[in-house]
Formats: sequence, structure tokens, C-alpha cells
Amino acid sequence: MDKMESKFASLATDNAPGQEVRERAAAQPVFSGDPIPGREVDFSHGDVDAFLPAPGTLDAFVAGVHAGGRQAYTEYRGSADIRAGLASRLAAFTGAPVSADTDLILTPGSQGALFLAVASVVGAGEKVAIVEPDYFANRKLVRFLDGEIMPVRLAFLEKADGAGLDLGDLEDAFKRGARAFVFSNPNNPTGAVYSDAEIRAIAALAERYGATVIVDQLYSRLRYSGTTYTHLRAVEVDPDRVITIMGPSKTESLSGYRLGVAFGSPRIIERMEKLQAIVSLRASGYNQSVLRGWLAEPKGWMEKRIALHQAIRNDLLERLWGAGLAARTPDAGSYLFPKLPRLSLAPADFVKALRFQASVIVTPGTEFGPNLNAFIRLNFSQDHAAAAAAVDRMIELVARYEG
Amino acid sequence: MDKMESKFASLATDNAPGQEVRERAAAQPVFSGDPIPGREVDFSHGDVDAFLPAPGTLDAFVAGVHAGGRQAYTEYRGSADIRAGLASRLAAFTGAPVSADTDLILTPGSQGALFLAVASVVGAGEKVAIVEPDYFANRKLVRFLDGEIMPVRLAFLEKADGAGLDLGDLEDAFKRGARAFVFSNPNNPTGAVYSDAEIRAIAALAERYGATVIVDQLYSRLRYSGTTYTHLRAVEVDPDRVITIMGPSKTESLSGYRLGVAFGSPRIIERMEKLQAIVSLRASGYNQSVLRGWLAEPKGWMEKRIALHQAIRNDLLERLWGAGLAARTPDAGSYLFPKLPRLSLAPADFVKALRFQASVIVTPGTEFGPNLNAFIRLNFSQDHAAAAAAVDRMIELVARYEG
Repeated sequence: MDKMESKFASLATDNAPGQEVRERAAAQPVFSGDPIPGREVDFSHGDVDAFLPAPGTLDAFVAGVHAGGRQAYTEYRGSADIRAGLASRLAAFTGAPVSADTDLILTPGSQGALFLAVASVVGAGEKVAIVEPDYFANRKLVRFLDGEIMPVRLAFLEKADGAGLDLGDLEDAFKRGARAFVFSNPNNPTGAVYSDAEIRAIAALAERYGATVIVDQLYSRLRYSGTTYTHLRAVEVDPDRVITIMGPSKTESLSGYRLGVAFGSPRIIERMEKLQAIVSLRASGYNQSVLRGWLAEPKGWMEKRIALHQAIRNDLLERLWGAGLAARTPDAGSYLFPKLPRLSLAPADFVKALRFQASVIVTPGTEFGPNLNAFIRLNFSQDHAAAAAAVDRMIELVARYEG
Repeated sequence: MDKMESKFASLATDNAPGQEVRERAAAQPVFSGDPIPGREVDFSHGDVDAFLPAPGTLDAFVAGVHAGGRQAYTEYRGSADIRAGLASRLAAFTGAPVSADTDLILTPGSQGALFLAVASVVGAGEKVAIVEPDYFANRKLVRFLDGEIMPVRLAFLEKADGAGLDLGDLEDAFKRGARAFVFSNPNNPTGAVYSDAEIRAIAALAERYGATVIVDQLYSRLRYSGTTYTHLRAVEVDPDRVITIMGPSKTESLSGYRLGVAFGSPRIIERMEKLQAIVSLRASGYNQSVLRGWLAEPKGWMEKRIALHQAIRNDLLERLWGAGLAARTPDAGSYLFPKLPRLSLAPADFVKALRFQASVIVTPGTEFGPNLNAFIRLNFSQDHAAAAAAVDRMIELVARYEG
């Protein structure tokens, strides 16, 4: 296997959300018992038919089309007037200034922002501190760029006060030469939110070791009651070493439009724009118009969305805990990351059994880091009743294969 | 300057189409004479307000939105049923089979396709044959990937029979270790179409040296009378060493939707999908719906578009030639690449004079390769009368600064 072959082998997407359809039928294991009937629920991503975008979204897109050439061909970093409006709303949301001219870029989804940010900071052979577990793309991006992953543990199940970041691991990574740290807050897949003390400790370590921090705050608007949230960019830290990533794909159900933003360090934003020019040119011009309504939804819209998700979270957690499954209560976002008991099926086969015998699609824990094969991730932004019934079927299947 | 700094310095976008607005005012040279009044024409890209998308485009997008979650979350390589329709139309257009399941990926613009293709083939330190002149992103992509450019000359002004590719240069690049060749056909910026003999020679050399060829056919539908076009993928060549790139951004005026396709080698398409999963996830789901109408426009629509562009081409060429400027007649596409005479202003300053004194925006030839500073590129997909008047102003300014 040559270098390129092994690189791409390590970027496998077979278990990535939505890719199950590409599985070859030949690979099915032998299951026991009958299928459990019920409406299929795809927990690998949120259901945008259950939680609709805010009113006016499509109208904003159509207005962009009618604006014509000036909206089709924006600067690579995105339309100047859309950036102007967004910059002030992002500053208000995060509690620190954002210059529309130098500090902000619009990207194709927050995935686009993450790629551009990491590729603008990490060169071949460079070390990057990565949380385990965390969003699977973080590790794949470092591999694609020929960087080296320095794992930082997250004691998400044990620790109630904060997300459970192992600050010793992080300092150790910096001591051993890492000059970048990439993490999501709230954490994907656990929904853990970093405490104020954790965020301040990350900032202090970044300062001490001269590191750049890329923080993916994709789910930072969907916070449940009792959660306090500290934006890294708003604490005492050199603004030129922080990039924050957000986007309306998840909480706001706009994934089909592929829109994201990165904001912070002008030096890194400029690199990201240069890179975007050869990667995708720009976020789709007409789609950018949809961002005019982002962080500006009707009064009460977000509060209602949070309340509905909190109700689903509580309901599913009760069912999981009732069946004896361990799961941390997510502080924010719409992911649950329960731990399965010992099963007679290999974890990867149980995920297949869930799909073929219970019409329940989940993402295997192994996508989020090593040694996580006892875990599965559920995106519970779903029709409430369907999600509850699907979790009941899952619990029934766990019982069937337990031991 | 560290390695990452110098890499990003080499990816400069200051002269890229649409980025002029980011120029700092302080940098203006001293011009002579008064501005020449007239309607601004931005030749750096086509005018989608002058040439509209085919009827039904926006309706197709809206239908995608109404399809909901299944259209928002397609496979990373794009919606299966949209690929099915496209695969057969692309096969008919290019004259060689395309499997919807294994040979095709939808991307955010043809820029997205080009990035994914080159990044799937070129590893760090690897040599890549690149035509000069050719689309500026080709060279930037190789630099970003830490590859090495092996230039292949194109005698576009001297040669009437074919595009003028120096096959000796290409073989030399392969002999010296290049295992990839990237080129556009029709050539961007000259509009030259490679002859059947040239395409067959490229295929034969690729076979002999085991090289992969990425051919950007973005403008291959807009062919003027008398032009014959040979698709590389349709001649005798191992299909696993060819990737063809197309998209509806230019001729079809759909740039604001950011849609492109790559098709060919299943091995490379699979790598591209893995990479897309960490770069942008997928082409915007709803936008993909617009591709249902691509290569399926109403009868006569494309023929009319070609006729209108041919009329503009002929008119502008007559004006340029009448003023004594050398320019090759483009066989296809909507780019003109005239050569300027010796001027009293540096070429980069003349491009600024054009913008500030004549309201004419062009792309400097230096974007397309070294030693091209006497050339400028004009995308003549514009309002006919406005484009003609703009070229007259350009000619007046050439006369003002000549000698």
C-alpha cells in the first residue's frame, strides 16, 4: 500500500452518518429473533422534517437568487453586507468583538469552516492536540494533512463538574510540541459543556505554549436549563490565537443549505479565504442570503426549540437509565452517547442489528475515538414519539443480545 | 517566514476574480488623463444577469427544499437518483459509459471537484504536469499539497492546428517522474480546444508512463461553429486513469448554486468522497436538485446561447484585431486572452488603470502562469453592447499608455 493509499484508507466513511446505504449486502452477520416492527428513526443526524427551519428561510434564499450576479459572485469570504450583519450578531452572542472586514468567513457548512481552519494551521508533521472522544472529522483532518494526533482524554462519564477535560494531557501535548488544539464545545458526541474553569485553563495553556485553538461551537445555542456556557474567545486570551466555528446546520435545521462561519484571528481567516479560493471558491452565493435570518429568528423561536429538545432528552434518558444503560446527561446539543452492556454480538454487528432488526440507525462510538466501541451516538433531534419508540426497540434488542 | 506562512503567501488571491474589492486604496499608481465614462463591465466572470439560467432552475431548487430531509442529507457523493439521471446524460455527452453508483460524485462547484481530484491523486513531494497557461487554481492546488509543478508549454498564439500543447514537455515531465497531468479543455484562459490528435497523444503518453489525467471540461458545451471536440475519456485509455470535471457554473449561469461533478475512475471517485466528507460533507443538498435540469435544457436553448456568445466573440475580436492587438480566436468557452503592446505602465498597474479609469475589470495574465504579464483575460459572457463599449474603452486606454 503506497502512502496515498494508506492515507485514504484511514479516512474511511463506511460508518459515517448517511453512508450506510453504500454497505454491501454480503457483509451482514447472523442475527437472532424476529425484526421488531416500528417506524424507522435515523439517529445518525437530526430530522429536519420534525424540526423545521425558522420561517422565512426559503424566502431569503429566493431573494438571493433575485439579487442576481452580485449575490452569485461574492468575495470568497462571503458577501460583505451579510458579513456585516452577522459580525455584530456573533459578537453579541459570544461576548467579544468581530470585525466583518477581517475576522469572519462564510463557508460551505461548519464542516467547510473546520477543514479550512485546521488546514490553515496544521502543516505536515505538525502535532495537534485532539480530544477523545470528539467529532470524528477532527482526527481525519489531521491525518489528511499528515499531522500527528496528540490525544487528550475527556472523562465525560465520571466527571460532573465540567466536561472532564484532562488538563494534564493537554499540557503534556503542548510540552511535547503541539501548537494547535481542536475541540468541540459542547462536545460531540457527549453533549458535555466545558466549565468556565476548563475554558479559562485552556486559554491559559494556549497562551503559555503559544498554541492556536480551534473551537467548534456548532451546538452552542441549544443549551439546556442549568447550563452555563463560556465562550473561549471572550475570556482572557490573545484573539489572534482563537478561531471559533459555528453554523445553522443542526439546531436551526439548515443542513441542506450548507452554511457555516468561522470567526476570530484575522491572520488565520485570511489563510482560510485563500484556501477556500481553491477548495470551493465560496459558500453558495444564493445560500449565503439565508444567513440574514440566522441569530435573528422570531422572538421565542429558539426558546421553544430548546424546550422541545429538552423534553426529548429527558424522556430518552429516563428510558435508557431505566434499562440500566449508562449515559451522561447532555448539557447542550442534541446528542446522547449511551454505553452498551456486554453483548453477544460484536459492537459493529449490534449497530447493524439495530438497523436491520429494529429500524434504528445510530453512529458507532468508534467513530469518535479509540476504545469507544461500547458506545453509540444518537442525535435526538427527532419526532419525539418516534424517537421514544425507537429507543424502546433498541433497549429490547440490547436485552436480546445481552451477556 | 515559516513553511505554512510561505505556502499561504504563494496562494495569493489579490488578483483573483471578484477579490479586487479587498485591495487597499493606498496602493494606487499615478494615472494620466481623465476617466473614460461608461457602464462598468466586470470581465473577471460572466454576467448571470445578462445570460440567465435555463427556465425551471429555481423551481427545481424549491422542489428540493420541499423534499425535506432526504434531500438535505444525501450520501456524501450526492443523491443517488440525481446521480442516476446525470450519469446517463454525461455518458451520452462524452461518448463513454458512466456508472451512477461508482463513477460519479457531485461537488460544491467544479472548483470543489478539481480540489478533491487533485488532492486524491497528488501526495506531498509528488510531481504534477501542469499546462502554462492554464486555470490558476491548478498550480495553487499543487502548491497547497506540497507537490511539484512540471510545466508543459502551450503555444496557443503560434499554433492554429489544435491547442498547441508541447507534447515533448509532457513526455519529459512523465520521464522525470510526474504521475499526474492536470489540464483544462477548452483551455482556460485562451479558449483553445485540443485537437483529436493532441488528446490521443495525451492518452497514449498517460498509458505509457502510468499517469493519471484530470481534465477540466467546464466549458466543453459552449463550442463554436467549426470546432470538433474529443473527450479524453472516450478515446483508447484505461478508464481508471482519467477523471473528467464539469459543472453548470459558467455556460449555464448557475455559479450562485455551487454545483460541479467529477466522473471516471471509481478508485479516485471513492477517495474524493472520503475527502469531501471532511472538506464540506456534500454539495448543498437542496442545490443538488438543480442538476435534474442540467444537460436537459429545453430544445434549442444551448444552441441559442452558443450563437449569442459567438456573436460577442466575433465582435470583440474584430475590435481587438482592428486596434492591432494579438488574440487567438477561442474555439469554445467565453474567454478572450489578448496580448497588450508595450505600455508605459507596468502590466499590474494597467489592470488597475482599466478598472479606475475605464470601469473595465479584467484578470491579469500572470494568474495563469509565469511570463504572461503582457496578457489579460476577458470573460465575454456579458451584455453584448456593454462588452463592446468596454473593449473600446480598453483600446482607448491602451493607446493612451502605449510605448
